[in-house]
Amino acid sequence: MKLLRYGAPGAERPALVDASGTIRDLSGHVADLAGAALDPAALSKLADLDTASLPAVAASERLGPCVAGTGKFICIGLNYSDHAAESGMAVPPEPVIFMKASSAICGPNDDVLIPRGSEKTDWEVELGVVIGKTAKYVSEAEALDYVAGYCVSHDVSERAFQTERSGQWTKGKSCDTFGPIGPWLVTKDEITDPQNLGMWLKVNGETMQNGSTATMVYGVAFLVSYLSQFMSLHPGDVISTGTPPGVGMGMKPQRYLKPGDVVELGIEGLGTQKQTFRADA
Amino acid sequence: MKLLRYGAPGAERPALVDASGTIRDLSGHVADLAGAALDPAALSKLADLDTASLPAVAASERLGPCVAGTGKFICIGLNYSDHAAESGMAVPPEPVIFMKASSAICGPNDDVLIPRGSEKTDWEVELGVVIGKTAKYVSEAEALDYVAGYCVSHDVSERAFQTERSGQWTKGKSCDTFGPIGPWLVTKDEITDPQNLGMWLKVNGETMQNGSTATMVYGVAFLVSYLSQFMSLHPGDVISTGTPPGVGMGMKPQRYLKPGDVVELGIEGLGTQKQTFRADA
Repeated sequence: MKLLRYGAPGAERPALVDASGTIRDLSGHVADLAGAALDPAALSKLADLDTASLPAVAASERLGPCVAGTGKFICIGLNYSDHAAESGMAVPPEPVIFMKASSAICGPNDDVLIPRGSEKTDWEVELGVVIGKTAKYVSEAEALDYVAGYCVSHDVSERAFQTERSGQWTKGKSCDTFGPIGPWLVTKDEITDPQNLGMWLKVNGETMQNGSTATMVYGVAFLVSYLSQFMSLHPGDVISTGTPPGVGMGMKPQRYLKPGDVVELGIEGLGTQKQTFRADA
Repeated sequence: MKLLRYGAPGAERPALVDASGTIRDLSGHVADLAGAALDPAALSKLADLDTASLPAVAASERLGPCVAGTGKFICIGLNYSDHAAESGMAVPPEPVIFMKASSAICGPNDDVLIPRGSEKTDWEVELGVVIGKTAKYVSEAEALDYVAGYCVSHDVSERAFQTERSGQWTKGKSCDTFGPIGPWLVTKDEITDPQNLGMWLKVNGETMQNGSTATMVYGVAFLVSYLSQFMSLHPGDVISTGTPPGVGMGMKPQRYLKPGDVVELGIEGLGTQKQTFRADA
């Protein structure tokens, strides 16, 4: 299933995409895509619905973040060996983790605000993993049982805030609108192998990132297990698993986003995002 | 006012402490100490209630975290010059910020779980600042207008996870129960000067930390303003503002917590906490 949330910010309603591509409202069956509704068992009940009986939704509706109630937005740093290289950093012996503020989350096609004082706003296409039920001390073998599904995650980053302002990275990762997720929460049954998904990102039509989750250093099952050794993961938590090469910071000369730039990104099977960047008021 | 939340974990009810020290239930007047209820204007209405008319609550009730709906649990690193020295770190030219997972939050007297594999679980008494209304790009002069009040915050830390496991600090700060807050959310009108509060922490009755917010490098108003340049602060967000000297990592030899240890801590005017540490299951 491709699940989504549509409507005005803060008032989104749950929906799915049917086989013909029509958005169908799920409000009669689930209050929101959050909490217990994300349990894989609960999601499988939604899969049994007769989609033709669900109200159709106009394709012009704004899309919100594809999941609600995200308590933790956890990111993995330097998780593609070639991205580590372009950043001038070594591949870490175990995952680097940092947090994005959950208040950074926005819809997949919302405008992204370049914060005041920013000169180094950068892009990062990432595979997002949405937790479906509480995971603590889980093994790698059972880790995917705790996953609801996957989404496109844009880990927008301000490099000066991240690396030149006394630390830590969260400072450059948490600005409002720096976390577009969606368009869809794709349930895991649709993704045969999360470690073999093509992914790409374009700025003003020019391809900047063109990689695959096949080159991740630490894969999804390992990460879910690993993180659960340090803290409980709860339904709605999102893990953004790192980015392949091609970010602006890694270019010579470096290249950053300015007001009016349009970023498009996508991951195989998970849909696409498109954002216009603009100066924050 | 001294506000608090009492009852079973996840089912806490709002209350206040009256002039005689009796806990009085606020459920009839506010759903929870979260969101819009934390606006300083809303809190001032609670202050007008006739406390004698409110139901008394048994003093034996468990205390929960003193605020609910915490989207961000932001910590300031190395914010006491003498703590930076004992950690072997320089005072940073601007605040170091990192996140604790909001899922680490627990009540002030709940048991704290020493996570599997931990050998360096450490203590840190800190002044917690609770945001009362949304703050973005606010000046230092107006920053306190956005603060609901203050609380004791225990920034429990696993030093090996924090500093020896490939980074970043959040890895050693986010374990379940590593964030006791309370007992009270003390509204800011009761705290004449947040930069002149004595603070202390004892392990098994022995004083380990004995400091004052007077020696903070970056004060509360500066921090609220500073953080709001990077991200919106929302009602219920908690800022834990750093710890004075005396943590276990800074001792020679270093000293860490083990199952059965009892930690007590407090801040002048904000009450005390007491936790028994035990091994996680």
